[in-house]
Amino acid sequence: VSCGITVGEVGERELIARIRARIGPASDRVRLGIGDDAALLVPPKRALEAVTTDVLVEGVHFDRALTGAYDIGAKAVAVNLSDLAAMGATPRAVLLSLGLPPALSTGDFDALVAGVMEMAGRYGVALVGGNVTRSPGALFVDVTALGDVHPRKALTRAGGRPGDALYVTGCAGAAAAGLVCLRQAVSSGGSSPETDGAVADAIARYRRPDPRVRLGILVGRNRAASACIDSSDGLADAVRQIACASGTGARIDASAVPWHPAVARLWPSGIEAVEGALSGSDDYELLFAVPPRKRRLFASVAVRPGGPPVTRIGMLTEGRDIVIRRDDRDAALPAGYTHFG
Amino acid sequence: VSCGITVGEVGERELIARIRARIGPASDRVRLGIGDDAALLVPPKRALEAVTTDVLVEGVHFDRALTGAYDIGAKAVAVNLSDLAAMGATPRAVLLSLGLPPALSTGDFDALVAGVMEMAGRYGVALVGGNVTRSPGALFVDVTALGDVHPRKALTRAGGRPGDALYVTGCAGAAAAGLVCLRQAVSSGGSSPETDGAVADAIARYRRPDPRVRLGILVGRNRAASACIDSSDGLADAVRQIACASGTGARIDASAVPWHPAVARLWPSGIEAVEGALSGSDDYELLFAVPPRKRRLFASVAVRPGGPPVTRIGMLTEGRDIVIRRDDRDAALPAGYTHFG
Repeated sequence: VSCGITVGEVGERELIARIRARIGPASDRVRLGIGDDAALLVPPKRALEAVTTDVLVEGVHFDRALTGAYDIGAKAVAVNLSDLAAMGATPRAVLLSLGLPPALSTGDFDALVAGVMEMAGRYGVALVGGNVTRSPGALFVDVTALGDVHPRKALTRAGGRPGDALYVTGCAGAAAAGLVCLRQAVSSGGSSPETDGAVADAIARYRRPDPRVRLGILVGRNRAASACIDSSDGLADAVRQIACASGTGARIDASAVPWHPAVARLWPSGIEAVEGALSGSDDYELLFAVPPRKRRLFASVAVRPGGPPVTRIGMLTEGRDIVIRRDDRDAALPAGYTHFG
Repeated sequence: VSCGITVGEVGERELIARIRARIGPASDRVRLGIGDDAALLVPPKRALEAVTTDVLVEGVHFDRALTGAYDIGAKAVAVNLSDLAAMGATPRAVLLSLGLPPALSTGDFDALVAGVMEMAGRYGVALVGGNVTRSPGALFVDVTALGDVHPRKALTRAGGRPGDALYVTGCAGAAAAGLVCLRQAVSSGGSSPETDGAVADAIARYRRPDPRVRLGILVGRNRAASACIDSSDGLADAVRQIACASGTGARIDASAVPWHPAVARLWPSGIEAVEGALSGSDDYELLFAVPPRKRRLFASVAVRPGGPPVTRIGMLTEGRDIVIRRDDRDAALPAGYTHFG
């Protein structure tokens, strides 16, 4: 009904009213939600508060021709929940700051908000505050997420030691492959790429990443890892960051990395596939460092029916070199993804 | 030295390193600051947590020809601290999400961050997290602020009752008048407008708003008001919002409103001046509702040497009408400012 009307026509107050209409009953943790100068939350007891912020910008992180408004909203929340999961934190609340081109349709606005609410609701997270403004250029969706984690159960990047094994969830390069497939489908005139199961799965992982919320919390709660990071800027970057923060080197075994099947389909050359899968961003998997004495504990916690696959891909090493071992030779690990090119 | 280099040339990691280099020693409240997947904060004890988010977007909230990068950074923090002050909350931490046009100079980037740090440091607030990304269009500076407030001392918008007096800090319309003067100066080829003291003051209030942090905390702590809001969208909007949330009407006395002197200079007609001052945004003053039995307490708390002037401008009323009394006649209060025009 509203698809012909733009957000510029209905204005800020009506847009905020539409968001408020979607908010469910307040949780115990929310003393005062959207609608005042600030929200009032009951802070965690005997826990630290984990806070993070991340934004999706049109033309940088997404293209509206490839990703619908619902998926953009859901993903903006997902990338923040992924950051909390990488700390072992339980997500509690999000704030949403929207910059809207005035020509955006109210239908797209409603879909975006529905995506935000779906992803937040999936993990019991309350939308407690926000802001709606005009953007003269790109649509942007900025989210801040708050969560709780027990002080001794937080997973930082810095706790790894030489000899710790590196484990990654899911499949590497799925989102990057999905994006390539999506672009090919659009430029070839929209012939559906989803007849191929691996391709369809890769596209779904690009469009609708599901953060590893439960796994991050479980591993943290059981103190089953020494360090953790999410792979939002690619697996190579995640390995580099966890090693750098831990003051170690790292060695990845190329043959152990769980490439997504669409990666091999896109880049039949092994070297290109490795580069694509290691450097491709947007997977939102978790990378854990696990000390030798905790490997059985980690396996019992992390490997669960219905959970993502968890694969050992290498280890942290003495020194500072970050290498990938391929065909019995060590090479420098390719760099991660950066949105500044 | 760096003024010829753009942020697009130096890249995300270098920009984050520049921010980290400016961060002082961690406070007791910050267990883990910038550099991991999320920051870890010690939550408040025996207090609620107040959280708010607000963004400044180029071409909507500021024009780089009129406002320098340092002032943009400082203001992005100030507008959020103003929201916390309006809850009576003590600010503790901010997160900063920057969307940067690649052509922005590193000199402007450094100045923007310096402005953020100055405003945060002025009120003892730690920068605990953030995000730097490219923006294909407008520069945007998105801030989330966290603060503490005792549950019974929080100032919401909704606590007002008919008969409560309305008090406002500072001068109304200062920022709106300052912006008009700035634009006139630029369009007339840059003849300095600051020879006139009132005009110079109005411009300073537009460029460098100073949130009423201490006054908001003091009034909340002493429970000296029944409701509070900041006037970021104009005084008329603030009156309307506080009355609407409190379920009351309101009557403002035009002759009591403390117009900034530059307002009268710009708009010699009284009616235009009233409209400009009431509807003009960006003042970041506080509007309080004060019950009759608390007026002496409020006066003793709010009127302090070195503090802003505090002026009684009207009252909350029975019913729902929002009126301004001028020349012994009631008229509807003009609408507030909206960035969706």
